[in-house]
Amino acid sequence: MRRGTNLLAVGGFNQAVILDLIRRAPQGLSRVEIAGATGLSAQTVSNVSRRLIDSGIVLEAGKLNVGPGKPRTLLQLEPTGLYSIGVHLDPTVITYVLLDLAGDVVTDHRAPLPANATPDSIIREMAERIAAILEDSVVPHDRVLGVGIAAPGPVDAALGILLDPPLLDGWTRVPLREALADATGFPVVLEKDVAAAAVAEIWTGGGGERDNFAFFYYGTGIGMGLVIDRDVLRGSSNNAGDMGHIRVAPTGPLCSCGRRGCIGELVVPHRLVAEAVETGIIAEGPPASSVDDDFSRFSDVAADGSAGAIAILDRTAAHIAAAVVVITNLLDVDRVIFGGPFWQRVSARVLPTIAELVNADPALISPHPIEVSDSAIGEDVAAIGAGCLVLDHFLSPRPSALLISE
Amino acid sequence: MRRGTNLLAVGGFNQAVILDLIRRAPQGLSRVEIAGATGLSAQTVSNVSRRLIDSGIVLEAGKLNVGPGKPRTLLQLEPTGLYSIGVHLDPTVITYVLLDLAGDVVTDHRAPLPANATPDSIIREMAERIAAILEDSVVPHDRVLGVGIAAPGPVDAALGILLDPPLLDGWTRVPLREALADATGFPVVLEKDVAAAAVAEIWTGGGGERDNFAFFYYGTGIGMGLVIDRDVLRGSSNNAGDMGHIRVAPTGPLCSCGRRGCIGELVVPHRLVAEAVETGIIAEGPPASSVDDDFSRFSDVAADGSAGAIAILDRTAAHIAAAVVVITNLLDVDRVIFGGPFWQRVSARVLPTIAELVNADPALISPHPIEVSDSAIGEDVAAIGAGCLVLDHFLSPRPSALLISE
Repeated sequence: MRRGTNLLAVGGFNQAVILDLIRRAPQGLSRVEIAGATGLSAQTVSNVSRRLIDSGIVLEAGKLNVGPGKPRTLLQLEPTGLYSIGVHLDPTVITYVLLDLAGDVVTDHRAPLPANATPDSIIREMAERIAAILEDSVVPHDRVLGVGIAAPGPVDAALGILLDPPLLDGWTRVPLREALADATGFPVVLEKDVAAAAVAEIWTGGGGERDNFAFFYYGTGIGMGLVIDRDVLRGSSNNAGDMGHIRVAPTGPLCSCGRRGCIGELVVPHRLVAEAVETGIIAEGPPASSVDDDFSRFSDVAADGSAGAIAILDRTAAHIAAAVVVITNLLDVDRVIFGGPFWQRVSARVLPTIAELVNADPALISPHPIEVSDSAIGEDVAAIGAGCLVLDHFLSPRPSALLISE
Repeated sequence: MRRGTNLLAVGGFNQAVILDLIRRAPQGLSRVEIAGATGLSAQTVSNVSRRLIDSGIVLEAGKLNVGPGKPRTLLQLEPTGLYSIGVHLDPTVITYVLLDLAGDVVTDHRAPLPANATPDSIIREMAERIAAILEDSVVPHDRVLGVGIAAPGPVDAALGILLDPPLLDGWTRVPLREALADATGFPVVLEKDVAAAAVAEIWTGGGGERDNFAFFYYGTGIGMGLVIDRDVLRGSSNNAGDMGHIRVAPTGPLCSCGRRGCIGELVVPHRLVAEAVETGIIAEGPPASSVDDDFSRFSDVAADGSAGAIAILDRTAAHIAAAVVVITNLLDVDRVIFGGPFWQRVSARVLPTIAELVNADPALISPHPIEVSDSAIGEDVAAIGAGCLVLDHFLSPRPSALLISE
């Protein structure tokens, strides 16, 4: 079985510290600066730098003149030195991204999740797609650190298993981490979708400037990624972020929990489509039409000014706003970022309404306004987060408790 | 104006590190062990230890024989070397505790909050009561590090101001921290009540063994203290923990937010008393009766087996359980601890019902059971937490962002 490079794993703690410093200094750092910042000896810095340069992960990029002495050579990250793959398994679509060492997207790919396909066949398909992406991008396997996969919860983090995601029929206790590692030959990191999305926001989105924020994930299902003190809140079993049973109305469709008014039943894309079909706002889709296609038709009609479609979006905004108030009251976050595979199609109408309703809600406890904004990352957010997790796992001198199978 | 000792403030970081180590080793530590654990030189450890011993904060407690060399003298905390005062301002009762350096309660006192008293007169009363407690306990002022005060939110943490706590009439923008510092001559730390209760649980309660838990605070109002990775989650403006507007029923009394079914309207003590009076389960109290007294009469009737009172408690348990499910789904905590001034009187009936309902709820996402338990600390929990905050603030080498006026 082929495996991703373990170059970095054997490099040890000093190497991780040095690489992390270089990653965070896009303008480059001299060996002297690295020694000063880390407290490591000049000899250690020199040895590790040499190893990183020889491995193609770091490059020498110009000289810095400081005073009368010898100019100092600057070390910079070589983004193409290593890669990671992020996969996002949403109940209706699979998203793939190839990230370079800087966390930038080299290429991405989206494919609908085939209805009635077994987990086995989908995992096989994932492995084939990953192989094809690497081939198309001419990235050798030994330059790939691993695969991160974002999936709907609940998960068993210790075992790397999807337990029984409500919207993924037939995925009960699927050992996704192990199976994908076997199928691809790469180490695999498994993370809940909303947590992965929050990781992406911290890495590359607007969230990075904030210590605390919440990420409202709008996919086939919904969830809330929570970032506290620049760290994703994962909870005691890595299942934090479920908001589906927050009740936002006294009535509504019957939820799986036996109650009515749960937000997870009220605002998800397939519910909006169903409402629009029932009230004649859009026609029923063809027999094999996906929620993705139907939701695009619905949002097109809303964008064209259909009063009925806009009324549905306004009710959706009110429901989301009510849940945001509950969550911000509990956690005292002052920013909520919205994104996920289905978000962009409705944001133009929904986001400003949410902003207004949240801040005018007499139930809001916060003494400061709650900012809401779109994610700058777009639909691939959870896949990018999954890829960033792999980079973090291998490159951070203090990797968080992650879920690796190798 | 008299001030609390600033001995520790001038001791600097090394002293804080050493004292923190000694605090956490009740069996005592030798100077050699301290040097080994901190990386500080033997000389520095010796100097700082001498200063701590001379100040009466640390004492030499026996010898430890290790091998053939000179026996090592063990250093231990001297709990009576320093003290802190914790005050909990609940809308119906004020609780005071005097804590020693180990966080143990030396003495406590509870007094009803006089109706219609102005904030000024109450702050004056607090200062008088604190002076009386110190006098009765024969604790000199210069041995008191400061006063911690736990109060209902929302607060302005930066300014030390209570903004407009819903249940404290007439307390709008009261500069409690400054006013109490002026009235007492001590530095004052202000914390929201639910956060203070969570601090107490971490210090001295069962919560200390857990990284993550939630603390359901049952006072005149309710709230949820949240502990993530052994740290109290305070939020961006120190106002985290408000759960009053979580909707747990499709109907109910009209809430201040204009909705019905908010838990903050359904389960608070005065609501249970009102229900019991309306349905003839208990008689109306005398004109000046406090919620505290009325609630005791109600809980006595329930304990005596009144079916009507028990039905009210069972509905209350169901409402609390529904909110606990929302919160544990969002944060993935696996333990919820219940306490606060009104809790103990109803726990015997309510707690087991909550345990059963939470874990049987089809809305519960967690793959592991949620443990619920009573706080081991009792009614003084928020006051004790406020006192512990003062100890933390002065003694921890990494004091959290706190709110001191001195």
